[in-house]
Formats: sequence, C-alpha cells, structure tokens
Amino acid sequence: MLDIKFECELSLVAGGAGFIGTQLVTNLLDQGRTVLVVDNFSRGQRNFLSHHLGNRRLHVVEADLSRRENCEMAFNIAEDLGRISEVWHLAANSDIPAGVADPDIDLKDTFCTSFELLRAMRAHKVKVINFASSSAVYGDWMDVPLHESLGPLRPISNYGAMKLASEAQICASAESFLDQANIFRFPNVVGTPATHGVLYDFIGRLKKDPSKLEVLGDGTQQKSYLHVSDLVSAMLAVRNRPTGPRVEIVNIGATDVGVTVKWIAEQVASRISPSAEIVFGDSNRGWIGDVPKFQYLTDRIQSYDWVPMLGSRAAVIRAINEIALEFDL
Amino acid sequence: MLDIKFECELSLVAGGAGFIGTQLVTNLLDQGRTVLVVDNFSRGQRNFLSHHLGNRRLHVVEADLSRRENCEMAFNIAEDLGRISEVWHLAANSDIPAGVADPDIDLKDTFCTSFELLRAMRAHKVKVINFASSSAVYGDWMDVPLHESLGPLRPISNYGAMKLASEAQICASAESFLDQANIFRFPNVVGTPATHGVLYDFIGRLKKDPSKLEVLGDGTQQKSYLHVSDLVSAMLAVRNRPTGPRVEIVNIGATDVGVTVKWIAEQVASRISPSAEIVFGDSNRGWIGDVPKFQYLTDRIQSYDWVPMLGSRAAVIRAINEIALEFDL
Repeated sequence: MLDIKFECELSLVAGGAGFIGTQLVTNLLDQGRTVLVVDNFSRGQRNFLSHHLGNRRLHVVEADLSRRENCEMAFNIAEDLGRISEVWHLAANSDIPAGVADPDIDLKDTFCTSFELLRAMRAHKVKVINFASSSAVYGDWMDVPLHESLGPLRPISNYGAMKLASEAQICASAESFLDQANIFRFPNVVGTPATHGVLYDFIGRLKKDPSKLEVLGDGTQQKSYLHVSDLVSAMLAVRNRPTGPRVEIVNIGATDVGVTVKWIAEQVASRISPSAEIVFGDSNRGWIGDVPKFQYLTDRIQSYDWVPMLGSRAAVIRAINEIALEFDL
Repeated sequence: MLDIKFECELSLVAGGAGFIGTQLVTNLLDQGRTVLVVDNFSRGQRNFLSHHLGNRRLHVVEADLSRRENCEMAFNIAEDLGRISEVWHLAANSDIPAGVADPDIDLKDTFCTSFELLRAMRAHKVKVINFASSSAVYGDWMDVPLHESLGPLRPISNYGAMKLASEAQICASAESFLDQANIFRFPNVVGTPATHGVLYDFIGRLKKDPSKLEVLGDGTQQKSYLHVSDLVSAMLAVRNRPTGPRVEIVNIGATDVGVTVKWIAEQVASRISPSAEIVFGDSNRGWIGDVPKFQYLTDRIQSYDWVPMLGSRAAVIRAINEIALEFDL
C-alpha cells in the first residue's frame, strides 16, 4: 500500500484582509484554491472575510510581516496547511501623507514587508510572487502618459519610493531564486470594503456634516479609477499566463482619461447630501506626494485579453453606492 | 560690538575613508572646504587619509550610519564643527556576491545608510545630497547602451536593488525637503587605495600564487572602466552646476566600449607575473548579479563639459601600476 500524503496548493495572501485583498481572496477561493490570509489588521478587518465563514479552505493568521519572526511563523503555518505555490503581496501602508510625515511608516509597512516576504520565500523555496505595486512609483510626469518603460522613475512620496524599492528587490530575487514575478502597478482603485481613499473620505465627511464637503486641493486633479473587481480579474489574467518573462511589470488601469476630483465630489454629494456646499482648496495637489494628473498606457495589460468592465465614471458611481451602504447611507 | 560667530561650510562625507571617498576628500580639501569623514572602517581605513595628517580642516569620526543613533551622533558632531552644507553619500557594501548570498548586507549597508542619512538631513535641515549610485541599478540590458531614461529598471543583484531603493528615497525626499540631489550612476572604477574590484582581486591572487591566475567566468565580459580621478572630477562638475533640475541622475563613465576581463587578466599578468597561466571558467558571468557586458551612454555628463582624461585601457593600466605598488610589487 502506498503512503500518499495529499498536499494542497496554497496561496499565501499578505494583506488579504484589506480592501483589495478581500476581493482577491474571494476569487482565489472561487477557483478552488486553499488560501492563508496573513494580515496585521491595521486597516484590514476579520469581518471583511466573514462571508467565507465555514469555508475550510480559508485560513487566517495575524502577523506583522515586516518583523522577521512573525513572517517566519506565518510561513511555517502555511507549510503545515499545504504546499505554498505562490505569494500575493498586498500588505502596505495605505496612508500616503502619513508616510511623508514619518518615513519610518513606509520603510516598515511598505518596504520591510516585501523584503521579509522575499527572504522567507527563498528559505521556503516559494518561487512565484504577485506584487501590488503602484502608479506612485512613476512620480510626476505632467502630461506624459505613463507606460511601463518610462525612466528614470522619480517617486515623490515615500510610499512610492518604498514601492519602487520593493520592485527592485523582487527583480534581484528573480535573478537568484524566483520562477515568476508579477509586478502590478495599481491605479486608483475603488469599491468595497473601503478602508481609505477619496470616496471613503468624502462619504465619511458628508455623513458627519451633511451641509458641507471640504476638498483638499482645487479639484482639478484628474485621475482614472478602476473598480476592484476589474483589478482582480486583471491580476489573475497575468498570473495565469502560460509563459512570458520571469519578471512582468504591468500597469493596470482604466482605458479612459479619468475624472476630476471636482466631478467626484459632485457625484458623492448628489448621492449622499445633494444640498451640501462643496468647498475647494487652492492647490492642484492634495498633499506632498500627490500627483495632480496622470494617465496610464495600458497596452500591456490589454495584451492579456483583459479589458475593464467599468470605465472610470461607472466605477466611481458604482463604488459610491457600495460605500454608502457600508456607511448605512 | 557685534558678536560674530564664524561658521565654516562643512561637507559630510559618508564612506569618506573608502576607495572613492578618499580621493573625493582630497579634492574637497584642495578646494578649501572643511570635511567630516564618517566611516565604519569595514573597508575604509584611517591610513588612506594619512597624507592629510595635520590638516585642521579634516575631521574623522567612526560610525555605522545604518544605525539611527550613530547617524544622529555624526550629524551632531558635524554641527559642532560648522554648517553642514552638503552630504556626500559613498557608504555602501562593496561586495556584490556577499550581498546576493545574504540580502541583509545590502539592506543594512547599502540601503539603510541612505535612509538614515536622509532622515538626519531632514532633521538637521541639510538640503544637498550627492549620492554614489551604480550601473547595477540597470540590470542586464544585453546590447542596449545604458542611458539614464531607460526603464523599467530590473537590477539583478541585491546591491543594485538597494542602490535603486536609495535613489527612490532620495527622489521622494527631494519633493519634501531637498534643494539639490545629484545621483551618480558609477561605472567600474579603478585606482587606489583599492579595497576591492577585479584588479585588486587579480593582483592579490598573483601575489599569492605567481604561477596561475584563475578567472571567474570565461573572460568575455566587457565593461568600461574609469579612473577614480576622472570620476571625482565628474562628480564635482555636476555638484557645482549653477542651476538645473532638483534631482539630477547622471551616468558617469568612460566614453569607449570598454575592455574584456580576458584583456585585463593579460595586462595584470604581464605586469605582475608574465609567466603565469591564465585559467578561465565556463560562464559569461562571474557570479549571480554580475552583468556580462554593458556600455554607458554619457551624453548627459559630457554636457557638463567633462571628458575623462583616461579611456578604459589607460585607466586600467595606470591602476594596475598603482595597485601593484600598494601590494609592494
């Protein structure tokens, strides 16, 4: 009689209880995979995953992945559950202004998480990483559409700098021990369960004071927005590629020119509190590290037969409704 | 009566007792500046600066700049000596294979030194940084000549990754508090006082065993080499620019196509031990993280009215003689 030990294929999802992580975990579970969510629950919440209660393929562990011993513990738990076939790394600081005020925040939460995850992957012979990078790595290119081959990259926030640092460490790791690294440069993403971002901020403010919506900056900042459901389908399309380069760096974003903050403020007000007065600031930047305008070139992600189901306008309007429900509005 | 406190303009040189730092410090002193060398003396040596003994404008302090309290101490000492008008950051790991074997080395010595220096500069209101970056940030572009606008950058060594991470953090810092950041992407540099590098390695081996020179790799790797005296004059040309962008990223390198490792081995052997047998390896890479061939485009540095006094061949031959003297050969 053969002694067969069944080992399932496991996805370790760092930051899996956060905004985007939650949506990704749902899709991975739907594909039949076993998932270990590792989260420090600073922004992520256990109840974001509550609809999977009772799913025996979902496991959750609390750990701060920027700390070596925590990271090692998470990998040991994962190995007890199955063979770790891939890491999804979505753990990061998500408060860009906070990281500009105190660089230690992005050093620890945005970069050291990457460094320690890669270190543990090498030790545990895990050879596939999918990394949530950001448009913030580009810095401010004014009217130049952003494509993946631009250089030199001069991020203007510590968040962007530590995302670029993470990309660099992933590339070096690919040379020594990885089989596949997918680096996704995220756009502005909207949807639920929202934990931060412009819509969450505006809706929260209007709930507190329905008479007035104060907007940082003059409202002319124009960006494209992608719904989280489209983002996750793009990541999976790249992850499931049969071949291709060892390191794939790909912008994920809407294919339109985006919408202005002024338009967003008006949409939020009309849904939440139509009589609210909208008050704008003077600058075309919301804060140090904010890029006033950017447009992605998305040829590469479209070459994976992916197109977003929702454009920027539709994504924002759908997300406003979703977040309003979250706020019981 | 006016109470005038004379404050001199001080250059803080991190890694100032190392190979390139020593040469830079000499030039800064020649220009009449006051210099504080901060070095951990892992590769750098006090006696590299011995010819400045008695120069009251040179100060030396031992500190590991990757450690916050050491970095803070160094800045406090500097402020007692004068007004810190600029930082030169040449502190880094210089053993690339060691950093591939243990990523902690480049995290600490190549990146954390940058992070902590920038943090201290913000606290002490120092607004000019000159940073020794590296061709290693580019990764392997095969036959594509390397210019500063290439992207995406995919470094293949942890050393290159942590140099790129440092560049990123400098760019973000420029957005919040720096007036001028000069990022120099160094080529292979030769000269004395050598502490590492291909010439130092070959000459050391031949001193030990004059009958044989074993070469990592098949000898076909081709790179350009710059003499350290030309490197320092290029950095000073950029530093002394009257205007220009807040962040200047510039390749510094010879203007020729370079020389092969085989040619270098032959030159070393003919100078040190003409009867030595030269034995090559099989690979066209010396180690993981080694780029077999690269060529710099140097239009940008030449726009500063700089040209190297020595091409790759002349630089290598001069350096072989200089290092041979160091080895008493």
